[in-house]
Amino acid sequence: MYRSHTCGELRAAEIGKEVTLAGWVQKTRDKGFMVWVDLRDRYGVTQLIFDEERTPKEMVAKARELGREFVIQITGKVIERESKNNQMPTGEIEILVTNLEILNTSLTPPFTIEDKTDGGDDLRMKYRYLDIRRNPVRENLIFRHKVSMEVRKYLSEKGFVDVETPYLIKSTPEGARDFVVPSRMNEGQFYALPQSPQTFKQLLMVGGMDKYFQIVKCFRDEDLRADRQPEFTQIDCEMAFVEQEGILNTFEGLTRHLLKEIKGVAVEKFPRMTYDEAMQTYGNDKPDIRFGMEFGELNDVAQHKEFNVFNDAELVVGIAVPGGANYTRKEIDALIDWVKRPQVGALGLVYVKCNEDGSYKSSVDKFYNEEDFVKWAEKTGAKPGDLICVLSGETNKVRAQLSALRMELANRLGLRKPNEFAPLWVVDFPLLEWDEETKRYHAMHHPFTSPKPGQMELLKTHPGDVKANAYDLVLNGNEIGGGSIRIHDRKVQEQMFDYLGFTPDEAQAQFGFLMEAFQYGAPPHGGIAFGLDRLVSILGGQETIRDFIAFPKNNSGRDVMIDAPATIDDSQLKELHLKLDL
Amino acid sequence: MYRSHTCGELRAAEIGKEVTLAGWVQKTRDKGFMVWVDLRDRYGVTQLIFDEERTPKEMVAKARELGREFVIQITGKVIERESKNNQMPTGEIEILVTNLEILNTSLTPPFTIEDKTDGGDDLRMKYRYLDIRRNPVRENLIFRHKVSMEVRKYLSEKGFVDVETPYLIKSTPEGARDFVVPSRMNEGQFYALPQSPQTFKQLLMVGGMDKYFQIVKCFRDEDLRADRQPEFTQIDCEMAFVEQEGILNTFEGLTRHLLKEIKGVAVEKFPRMTYDEAMQTYGNDKPDIRFGMEFGELNDVAQHKEFNVFNDAELVVGIAVPGGANYTRKEIDALIDWVKRPQVGALGLVYVKCNEDGSYKSSVDKFYNEEDFVKWAEKTGAKPGDLICVLSGETNKVRAQLSALRMELANRLGLRKPNEFAPLWVVDFPLLEWDEETKRYHAMHHPFTSPKPGQMELLKTHPGDVKANAYDLVLNGNEIGGGSIRIHDRKVQEQMFDYLGFTPDEAQAQFGFLMEAFQYGAPPHGGIAFGLDRLVSILGGQETIRDFIAFPKNNSGRDVMIDAPATIDDSQLKELHLKLDL
Repeated sequence: MYRSHTCGELRAAEIGKEVTLAGWVQKTRDKGFMVWVDLRDRYGVTQLIFDEERTPKEMVAKARELGREFVIQITGKVIERESKNNQMPTGEIEILVTNLEILNTSLTPPFTIEDKTDGGDDLRMKYRYLDIRRNPVRENLIFRHKVSMEVRKYLSEKGFVDVETPYLIKSTPEGARDFVVPSRMNEGQFYALPQSPQTFKQLLMVGGMDKYFQIVKCFRDEDLRADRQPEFTQIDCEMAFVEQEGILNTFEGLTRHLLKEIKGVAVEKFPRMTYDEAMQTYGNDKPDIRFGMEFGELNDVAQHKEFNVFNDAELVVGIAVPGGANYTRKEIDALIDWVKRPQVGALGLVYVKCNEDGSYKSSVDKFYNEEDFVKWAEKTGAKPGDLICVLSGETNKVRAQLSALRMELANRLGLRKPNEFAPLWVVDFPLLEWDEETKRYHAMHHPFTSPKPGQMELLKTHPGDVKANAYDLVLNGNEIGGGSIRIHDRKVQEQMFDYLGFTPDEAQAQFGFLMEAFQYGAPPHGGIAFGLDRLVSILGGQETIRDFIAFPKNNSGRDVMIDAPATIDDSQLKELHLKLDL
Repeated sequence: MYRSHTCGELRAAEIGKEVTLAGWVQKTRDKGFMVWVDLRDRYGVTQLIFDEERTPKEMVAKARELGREFVIQITGKVIERESKNNQMPTGEIEILVTNLEILNTSLTPPFTIEDKTDGGDDLRMKYRYLDIRRNPVRENLIFRHKVSMEVRKYLSEKGFVDVETPYLIKSTPEGARDFVVPSRMNEGQFYALPQSPQTFKQLLMVGGMDKYFQIVKCFRDEDLRADRQPEFTQIDCEMAFVEQEGILNTFEGLTRHLLKEIKGVAVEKFPRMTYDEAMQTYGNDKPDIRFGMEFGELNDVAQHKEFNVFNDAELVVGIAVPGGANYTRKEIDALIDWVKRPQVGALGLVYVKCNEDGSYKSSVDKFYNEEDFVKWAEKTGAKPGDLICVLSGETNKVRAQLSALRMELANRLGLRKPNEFAPLWVVDFPLLEWDEETKRYHAMHHPFTSPKPGQMELLKTHPGDVKANAYDLVLNGNEIGGGSIRIHDRKVQEQMFDYLGFTPDEAQAQFGFLMEAFQYGAPPHGGIAFGLDRLVSILGGQETIRDFIAFPKNNSGRDVMIDAPATIDDSQLKELHLKLDL
C-alpha cells in the first residue's frame, strides 16, 4: 500500500495517528533544524515536517535532497500544527515524518506547477502531462467528468438509451470535409470518421429505439479557426414520436438540471425567440441576452434628411451603450477604428451622445436636430448618459457588424458575467441558406431537417423563405445545442436532396440506406446535439474549449506533445494500396 | 403530442380512460365485425380493437388496410379485455379505437419482426434497423446501456475520473496494425486511430489524475477472425500509487458489483491462479472453471512401459470425462476424429473407460494393466463411469489440444451454463513470449508492462522465464479484462525497448514523449482494460459479441447496411496528397 490517506484528507480528528502518504513535492523550506515539505496529490496538499530532534538523521538529510516534483512516499505521525492555515483544508495538522522513500526523481519542470504558471501556451501543450498537474487544468477535467456523468444520469433516468454508433463509416462529401481512413482489406476504398452520428441515430429511431443518446467524438477536417478542434465531443440525442415542443421541453429539462446540479443556479422557463426576431433584435442567431443593448432600427427616423449615407442604406440601426455619453473624443475614435477593422468591416460609425442634461451631441449634428435624436433614443432605448452607436448599410452585413460591436462593448463594460446564465431557444430557422460561392442553396442545418408543415410548396417558389423545424439552444451568446425535426418520408427526403442539388444517383449512393429505411415504417422523429466542449467551458465560466480538453490539438491540427500526425512507413502505405502525391 | 402512453404501460387501473398511442402494427386479425391490431413500440404491445358497432365506420375500413410495420397513431378508450392474456403486461386491457391516423406506411419487411425471425445473418445485417426492432436485439442493446451506466456510476463513485483521450494520435508499428488517417493540413503525414489509450492514460497518471477511466472505442486493422471487430469498445482504467493487489481488489469490486446489480448473482472473493498453474491445470490461460475436468499429468505413471508414443512425448496428460465410460465405439471414434482435425491438430487420442464395475477398458490395453489405469484415474480424478482421454506430445501443443477437447466436451455435456458465473484472476503472466516468425521475444502484454520486482536481471540470461506484474480477469472461459503494473522509470523503459528490439532512435521516435514524461516525477501506476463487447455478451449469457453491437461490421470489415468502406472522389484524394496504388 503506497498510502493510507490522500494528501487532502487529514484533519485535526486524525491527530496522533500514524499515516502513510504519497505524492509530489510542491515545495520545501529548510530552516536549518527543520525541513518542511508541501506534499501534493490530486486531492490536496499536506505539510510534512522533518525535525532534527524527532526525525531520524538520514531522513532529514534525504529531505534536504528533494527537488520540486519528486515523487515520494512518507510515513509519520499526524500532529497539530503550531501555526494553523485556515486557507487549506489540511491546515490544522502536519505530519512528523519518520520514514521517507523517494519513488521517483524529477528534472526541473519547464514551467512552475502552480495555479498561475509561468509557462506559455506552447510549452504547456508540449508538456501537457505537467500542465494537468496544475489545479485549474485538473479541476476543469474533473468538472467535465461531472457534467458528462450528470448528462448520462439524467437522460438515462428519462428513458434514453446510450447506443454506441460506429466510427468507421462512409464519406459523404456534402457538408464539412471528412477525415478518411483507407481500408487495407477493401482495396482502394475508404472509411470516413463521422462528422456526427446523424444517420445512425435516425436509423435507431426507424429501429424503434424510441429515445437515444450518446456522448460521442465527432470529426471535421476543416481549416481550424481559433478554438475549433478537428475532433470534438457531442451529446447526441434523438427521440421518436415527438414534435418540436417535446424536444424543447426535454432538453430544457436537461439544461436546467445541469445548471442546478453543477452550478447551483435555478433558471425559470427558457425564453424562446424566432430566428427572424433574434436577427432583428441582436443581429445574431445566438444572442447573449444577459444584457440589453437591443437593436433599434432607425430607417423611419433617419432617412428623411440630407444624410445620403443613411438614405442609401438598406438598414440604419443603432444600439445604446450604457454610460457611453462621457466617452472622450479619443475613445470614440477608437470605437470607430474598431468597427472599421477588416474583421468587422463597417465603413464608419455615427454616434449620438445623450447627455445627462438632456442635450444631444452627435457626429451628424449638421443633418439632424434634437427632435430626430429624441426619436433615435426612443428606438434604441437610450437614456441620458448613454451613447447611441449607429451603423448603416446592407441589412445582413450591418446586423453582423453591429452585433460584433454590441458584444465587444458588453465585454468592455463587464456585462458578460461568467456566473450568470441566460439560456434561450432560437426557433424557426430558415431551411436553406444561399451560398454565394456555389450560387445555390445549402441546407442550413443538414439535409435531413424537415420544413415547417405546409411549406414544402414554398420551396419551389421562394426557397429562401421556407422555415424549418429547427432550433438552437443558446447560452450566454454561444450556441450550445442545435437540432431539428427530421424528414421521415422517403419522397420528401428525395425531393429535399433534389432541391439541394443532389442527382438521384448521388443521393442513392450516399444516403440510399436511409431512404430505403424510410420505406419500412419510419416513425416521426427529431433530435438535438450539444457541443460538450463548449457547454462545459461555458458552465465552467470560461470561453476557451481547449482548457477543458485533456489533450487538445493546436491550430494546425497537431498534437505537439506526441508529435502527431507523423510520417508512416512505406510498408504501411503499400499495404493500404496508397502512394504519396506531394 | 403523438401519445399519452407507451404501448407497454396500460393496466386495468386505466380502464375507462381515453388514451393516445403510437407505434408499429405487429399484426392484424380481421374477424369480419371486428378488427384487432397488436400495436408495438419499444416498451411493449397493446391490443387495439376496431368494432363495427362502436368504432366509426371509416376507421374500421382504414384498420383493414393496415399492413405489418405500418406506423400509426390511435386514440381510444381503455376497456377490459374479454379474454385476458396473462403472458403480456398489458393483457388485461385493450383499446377501443375511435380515431386512427396512419403516420407512415411500410413495405413488407424482408424478414419477420419477431423474437425468432426467418431472416438470415446477412439479411439481418443489411436491414439492421429492422433487426433492432426485434425484442432480443433491442433488449441486448438496452442491456449494454445498463452495463455501461453501472460501470460509470461505480467507478465515478470510487473517485475515478472519466477523461476523454484523443482519437487522432500517432501510428506505432509495434503491436497490431493501426488504422491511419491522412492529414490534409500536414502533407504526407498521418494520424493513427488508437488501438487503446494506453500511453495517454499513463500520461494522465504522470499528470496526477490519480484514477482514470473511460469507455472508449479502440481500433485494430487485423484480419478479422470470427467475432472480432475492427472497432471495439474498452472500459479503460488506470490508477496511480497502486500495486497489483490494489488493482485486483478494485476491479474485482467492479465485476462483483456488475454481477450483483445486473444479474442478481452474488460471487465471493474471486479465486486467483498463476499463469503457470492455469496452463498446467487447464492448458489455457483463460480457463473456464465452472466445471472440473482438470488436467492430470501422467508422465510418471505412463512412461514406464513399451508404449513409445508416450515414452517419446514431452508431456502425457489426460482428463476425465464425466459419464464417458458408456460412450459407444462410434462416439469415441468421432472424438478421435475431432482431436485430429487440423484446427486441433492432435495425432491421436488414447482413452480408458472406467467402468461402473471397477474394471477398465482402454485403447492401450496391450501396454498397460489395471494397476496403471488406477493411477491414471487417480491423477485425472476419474470415477467409475468416466472416460479418461489422454493426449501426448510437445507440452505447449498438447496442452492446447487437450484444452480444446475439454471445452468441446463441456459444451456437449452442457457444463457451460450461461447463467452461472465463475470469475478468476490469472496472475504472474510471462513478460515476454517467443515469436517463431520473427525469431525474437515480443512483449506478451505490451512494452509498458513492468517485470516482477528483482527480475530485471533475469532478462539478460533467461528472458522467457521473467514474470510480469500482469493479470487477466477471466469469466467463464473468456478473458474479459487484462492489465499490468507499468514501468514508470525512464531507464527501465529504455532497457525494455532495447530488449524488445527497438533501436534507441525508434524508441525515441515512437515513445519519446512517454520517456520524457517519466523524467518529471512519474508515480508508480498500473491499470486494466475490459473488453466491453465481450463482457456484455457474457453477462448476457451469450457468446457472440455482434449481437450486442448496434451496427457491427462483417468479417471483411464492411458495414453492409451503409455499404462502407467505399471509394472516394479524386478531389478528396488530391487534397490529401495521395494516389491509389492498386
